[in-house]
Amino acid sequence: MLNKPIEKSVLDGILKEMDISDISNATIRQCVAIANKLEALCGEEFIHLEIGVPGIPACPVGVEAQKRALDNNIAHEYPPVGGIPVLKKSASKFLKAYADIDIDAECIVPTVGSMQGSFNLILECSQLDPKKDTILFINPGFPPNMGQAKVLGIRSESFDIYNYRADKLRPKLEEYLSTGRIAAILYSNPNNPAWICLNEDELKTIGELATKYDTIVLEDLAYFCMDFRTDLSKRGEAPFQPTVARYTDNYIIMLSASKIFSYAGERIAVVAFSNKLFRREYPELRRRYKIGRMGDNYILTYLYVASSGVSHSAQYAYAALLEGAAEGKIDFISEMVKYGKRAHKSKEIFEKNGFHIVYDKDLDKKVGDGFFYTIGYKNFSCSELITGLLRCGITAITLNTTGSLQNGIRACVSRLSTDEQFEALDKRLAMFAALYENA
Amino acid sequence: MLNKPIEKSVLDGILKEMDISDISNATIRQCVAIANKLEALCGEEFIHLEIGVPGIPACPVGVEAQKRALDNNIAHEYPPVGGIPVLKKSASKFLKAYADIDIDAECIVPTVGSMQGSFNLILECSQLDPKKDTILFINPGFPPNMGQAKVLGIRSESFDIYNYRADKLRPKLEEYLSTGRIAAILYSNPNNPAWICLNEDELKTIGELATKYDTIVLEDLAYFCMDFRTDLSKRGEAPFQPTVARYTDNYIIMLSASKIFSYAGERIAVVAFSNKLFRREYPELRRRYKIGRMGDNYILTYLYVASSGVSHSAQYAYAALLEGAAEGKIDFISEMVKYGKRAHKSKEIFEKNGFHIVYDKDLDKKVGDGFFYTIGYKNFSCSELITGLLRCGITAITLNTTGSLQNGIRACVSRLSTDEQFEALDKRLAMFAALYENA
Repeated sequence: MLNKPIEKSVLDGILKEMDISDISNATIRQCVAIANKLEALCGEEFIHLEIGVPGIPACPVGVEAQKRALDNNIAHEYPPVGGIPVLKKSASKFLKAYADIDIDAECIVPTVGSMQGSFNLILECSQLDPKKDTILFINPGFPPNMGQAKVLGIRSESFDIYNYRADKLRPKLEEYLSTGRIAAILYSNPNNPAWICLNEDELKTIGELATKYDTIVLEDLAYFCMDFRTDLSKRGEAPFQPTVARYTDNYIIMLSASKIFSYAGERIAVVAFSNKLFRREYPELRRRYKIGRMGDNYILTYLYVASSGVSHSAQYAYAALLEGAAEGKIDFISEMVKYGKRAHKSKEIFEKNGFHIVYDKDLDKKVGDGFFYTIGYKNFSCSELITGLLRCGITAITLNTTGSLQNGIRACVSRLSTDEQFEALDKRLAMFAALYENA
Repeated sequence: MLNKPIEKSVLDGILKEMDISDISNATIRQCVAIANKLEALCGEEFIHLEIGVPGIPACPVGVEAQKRALDNNIAHEYPPVGGIPVLKKSASKFLKAYADIDIDAECIVPTVGSMQGSFNLILECSQLDPKKDTILFINPGFPPNMGQAKVLGIRSESFDIYNYRADKLRPKLEEYLSTGRIAAILYSNPNNPAWICLNEDELKTIGELATKYDTIVLEDLAYFCMDFRTDLSKRGEAPFQPTVARYTDNYIIMLSASKIFSYAGERIAVVAFSNKLFRREYPELRRRYKIGRMGDNYILTYLYVASSGVSHSAQYAYAALLEGAAEGKIDFISEMVKYGKRAHKSKEIFEKNGFHIVYDKDLDKKVGDGFFYTIGYKNFSCSELITGLLRCGITAITLNTTGSLQNGIRACVSRLSTDEQFEALDKRLAMFAALYENA
């Protein structure tokens, strides 16, 4: 069995064997695989900060509703591609209760995770107008979203928001939008990987420009109400989950069940179109598909051929979860606060050992404690940092895979829960610091 | 309330209101909607022959396994994108038992229905080699498959196999393959909509040409073992389900749970690559995605960004179903025979009233009784036939939407089960015959 720190030559051998020429470009799944190989050599588990698996059991209300649906013999019946009415209605109610926005049930459509949601939104947005052929990613972001554009052969642009917060956001966005080529802007808020949160002013800027340049905002709210610095738990009372929906009609929200209800396994989310956008007629869509409205095409043209709908039983699960939360019977936010505590504790351990938070501020406020955070060490490059962490028994993903220009890694706290893990983290980070003391 | 036959002007009004300029181009969902409007006006249910909803309850072994998986707390855990091992293994065993083909578990991957399977296969096949940019559909076929190429902007070709059976198939295929542009050939067998079955000689031709021109065959076996003219129910004993897999290594099979186990609601299928193709290295894929093997890309590049995998609990359901059938504990074929009986009875009613089967033969053999069949009336066009049927209270889809060049409709027997329905069918077809007696 090998001892830590693992010799660099051992790691290099594994990378060669796995055909990975640059470790800073490794995908999440590759990072998992590298760690698994090193674990086998060391005979000891790694600290896994790379993958965002929900570290909390699925909300039981969902499991019960799903089993009930199966008992009611829905497994043989194709789900309506536009979604079962009870899910559409409860999502509308949930968004009103916690985000204070009004979206008709008709305009809300289930998808096989937000992954399927964004895939088909990117595709549809790129076909609305021949002049608008580009998707703009506000980065850092979730790497597979950029992968979607690549797989589909759709042009994309991106920038790292690090130096463009507050007043600097408007001129930066206009640089791209003024070309007339931006079909859609995609970002997540709270942000994966950096957990920065765009504030209402920044969202207002995005919304106003989306209207001005007739661009669609694809807002991924996977971490809905998880900015724990503010108490967003009171239904129908301010403060609400921040959203661009307040500032433009050109918005589409993706709301996944994976994180807020720990329901990742069943692959379910909803896509909520603004009422106006759902019903908007696009001549180019009508020419190509003989259906003109954006929402009808999303359902009948794109989702129909992508998978003919979403697991019928999982739709009942998500309906029950959203309804329960909208009625105040499920306190989903206090469950999620566990992640915030883990983040707080593990950040302290990183900082104690000489590391720093990369995306550290929302303007003047310290970034919140949530599902993810970003870590740097001195002026180490992404590649140096991840190499050192792997040698000491810690795995994560590098920031450059997220479209960030900063040096660092993304740490996800979902699999960090026991005292032993926190102690091991501390010990291994101290080992890292000793190893690179004179760097 | 209106009486039947409904006046043509009433139907025309509905089409106008629904913005359908040519009824023979109406999609399945539009046919459902037209029928629903007419039903409301008549106060009487239509005979629904348009949509292929499984008309048999889901196989209970699947429902139990899925509920057990949910009880075991898998709803919070992302499924492996490549599929859970037990599903991969049982699918391999099932294909060996009933089709006598050897595919390693590794090479079998679950998808959100065969719809997601074919969507991503069409996409990947179109990116393997810049010279091979076209998908060839052997028609008649399932309209959404052609829709997938259209949505993705991928070039496609197709021909109606009606005049190209047996010896005429080879030269017809070579016409397309010799261009060097065909990336993949897609067909279903038994065929949706015509229920014709390619025989071993025809499959051999397809397989040999796929090898010769290095084209991939995408074989949709949604109606696996449902050619009831032959007893395919004996595990490990000939005769087996016919498949191109015996004649080329360039094959990929799609096997849906929707029909054979009546599990359509949960949206699950598997895609089974030939061992050789799964592991084949494509330089163009490596250049674009830094991953070379076809199977690895299917999972890590395409399915990952399409939906990050398939409902975790439904994977357990399908695993139990395939395992049960492979072990001979689930007699899935005798369940399906119900469809054959419905087809037989309803075809007799059509023929008694002067209609005929359009795709009537597999070479010298009469086409089998299964899930679908095709119906014509004198020399009526698709449009005339569907108009007349709708006026008399029957709905179906026209053959021209399936890429067929023949006049007629597709009839699906899944929703036809009660004596009252068969009696109503007879009465309404007699009404049709009386209405057009002098046509």
